[in-house]
Amino acid sequence: MQNPRPEPLTGPVRILIDAHGGDHAPGVVLDALTLVLAREDLAGVSFGLVGIEEVIAPSLRERGLDDQVQLVPSQDVIEMGDSPAVAVRRKKNSSIHVGVRKIRDGEWDALVSAGNTGALMAISKLILKTITGIDRPAIASLIPAEKGTRTLFLDVGANVDCTSDHLVQFALMGSCYMQTAENLPSPRVGLLNIGSEDIKGTDVVKVAANELAESPIEFIGNVEGTDLFSAEVDVVVCDGFVGNIALKTMEGTARFLADNMKNALLSGMRAKLGAWLARPALNRFKDRVNPSRYNGAPLLGLNGVVVKSHGSADASGLANAIGVAHREIREGLISRINEIMAQWHAS
Amino acid sequence: MQNPRPEPLTGPVRILIDAHGGDHAPGVVLDALTLVLAREDLAGVSFGLVGIEEVIAPSLRERGLDDQVQLVPSQDVIEMGDSPAVAVRRKKNSSIHVGVRKIRDGEWDALVSAGNTGALMAISKLILKTITGIDRPAIASLIPAEKGTRTLFLDVGANVDCTSDHLVQFALMGSCYMQTAENLPSPRVGLLNIGSEDIKGTDVVKVAANELAESPIEFIGNVEGTDLFSAEVDVVVCDGFVGNIALKTMEGTARFLADNMKNALLSGMRAKLGAWLARPALNRFKDRVNPSRYNGAPLLGLNGVVVKSHGSADASGLANAIGVAHREIREGLISRINEIMAQWHAS
Repeated sequence: MQNPRPEPLTGPVRILIDAHGGDHAPGVVLDALTLVLAREDLAGVSFGLVGIEEVIAPSLRERGLDDQVQLVPSQDVIEMGDSPAVAVRRKKNSSIHVGVRKIRDGEWDALVSAGNTGALMAISKLILKTITGIDRPAIASLIPAEKGTRTLFLDVGANVDCTSDHLVQFALMGSCYMQTAENLPSPRVGLLNIGSEDIKGTDVVKVAANELAESPIEFIGNVEGTDLFSAEVDVVVCDGFVGNIALKTMEGTARFLADNMKNALLSGMRAKLGAWLARPALNRFKDRVNPSRYNGAPLLGLNGVVVKSHGSADASGLANAIGVAHREIREGLISRINEIMAQWHAS
Repeated sequence: MQNPRPEPLTGPVRILIDAHGGDHAPGVVLDALTLVLAREDLAGVSFGLVGIEEVIAPSLRERGLDDQVQLVPSQDVIEMGDSPAVAVRRKKNSSIHVGVRKIRDGEWDALVSAGNTGALMAISKLILKTITGIDRPAIASLIPAEKGTRTLFLDVGANVDCTSDHLVQFALMGSCYMQTAENLPSPRVGLLNIGSEDIKGTDVVKVAANELAESPIEFIGNVEGTDLFSAEVDVVVCDGFVGNIALKTMEGTARFLADNMKNALLSGMRAKLGAWLARPALNRFKDRVNPSRYNGAPLLGLNGVVVKSHGSADASGLANAIGVAHREIREGLISRINEIMAQWHAS
């Protein structure tokens, strides 16, 4: 592990976006750039697009974005189906490789990619290394919760086997994220388990709970799957196997219910009229739980800001992921994680 | 392990119900008895109620059920907060203990309880033992899926740490259940994982996948959290830690979405009018996904039929759980699991 302590930011924030990741690239990436260039909270941010010049340059010109967005050329493209090992070794001039090297070299402050998650994580870990005290980076996901709050849920897929030390590190990073990027003074952190009692769960989870009870963060103990949407917890920690399955179960449940409800509301004139009248209210509800509003999964624990956008995200979702990267940089998240890990290891 | 091979049923089916389990006992249990006594598909079934005589007898008389329901007296009550170990050792005359002994002794064919899950499993395992070839019983849950299908999901909480052998046994039992109790000729079985590719997941899951590929059941490989509601899979297998978290995540997601939608539909006159018009359609939708319709989790792998009803189930839900027990007995599920395990070990 190397540990260049990032300095607080003084110049303008510089965010690099992967032109080739995701199901709808590069069109959706260009749409997202148009959106973020118009956003007031992102005024003054420099945007770059890393990708194959012949593909990207004409599109940038066509949309009149070529003088506002810097093109960073790359040669290869990592496909969604490439194994991380192959992507790491054989595609060293891919947009992800080039982008991550630019972060390491300090030329850009963050990389946002909707590409192959495993490859993005493997390449980022190899090139950026982890923060001292962090053995493995985690992927975190912000999910909507009761009373307009949000819950940070990690790890959602980077690490299938975790020790209790890994879970403790995820908890510290998650607390730090919610404190720094979401401005919560004392985020409440829970361990995902199958019951709230101490005696429940695997040995790994029990040991992690004991360690977290001694840690400086606000650890509230075990939480269950039903608590992921609770306003009483801000960070929920588990290994990447459980987290990925829980996150996809959420997606599946929401889709199943939405499909069934839609069918019900199309079943006959009376239901259709009711649905038409209720539509503005239903649209506000859909907007509130729209995954695109919560898009942008930070890869936490790296020596650099890398944010994963969902492969199927639309332009507004990708713009949100860019906003996530911006907050991380502006609030100095990496310095803060460095500090909390140093304190934890000194104690 | 002992292995009394159950004979195909000839006499009437006899189902014993725990009077004391769950949040609304014993009232909801008496309501459920009234419901099942009126059900045509359960005509001819003998029902028993195991519980404290002084508490139960007057209620049975009051409702005019005393000549249709046999009272099986017990002394103790296991509370929802009792640890399984304490329940097993200290409450040997509880309704669960007495009920499970009656199953072992062949006086009754099944026990349905809404009580403490851990205690119900521990006592059942101790007294009934497991079927030869099954190391650990699992708790299975039927969930609604696309196109009106149902998915059997197991283990949803009995075993936090599982070996690949355990997962293989769950898969065989799950296949057998859907074949026998749900009449599917060749149930499609998937392993819950974080990706559909072979290289994904924990070592335990990878080894289980290899073994299942050689098994006589219709193994379709890895499935993801989003596939739990798919019409393309009939049985989804995982360890009890992951399964319990996924099941509770489903519950939490459904509740969160329902609460938000309800609030949206109450926001203003237009939305309220729309909701009123759409209400019959929305009620059909609610009925379709109503957890009470899917209540009744079989404890699979025991030498006897034990079904767990959700602690918060209403009378209609508990009646469903009784129906689950009835199907298991009528279709000779335990003999079938015995057969498939004997074939598996002979091969």
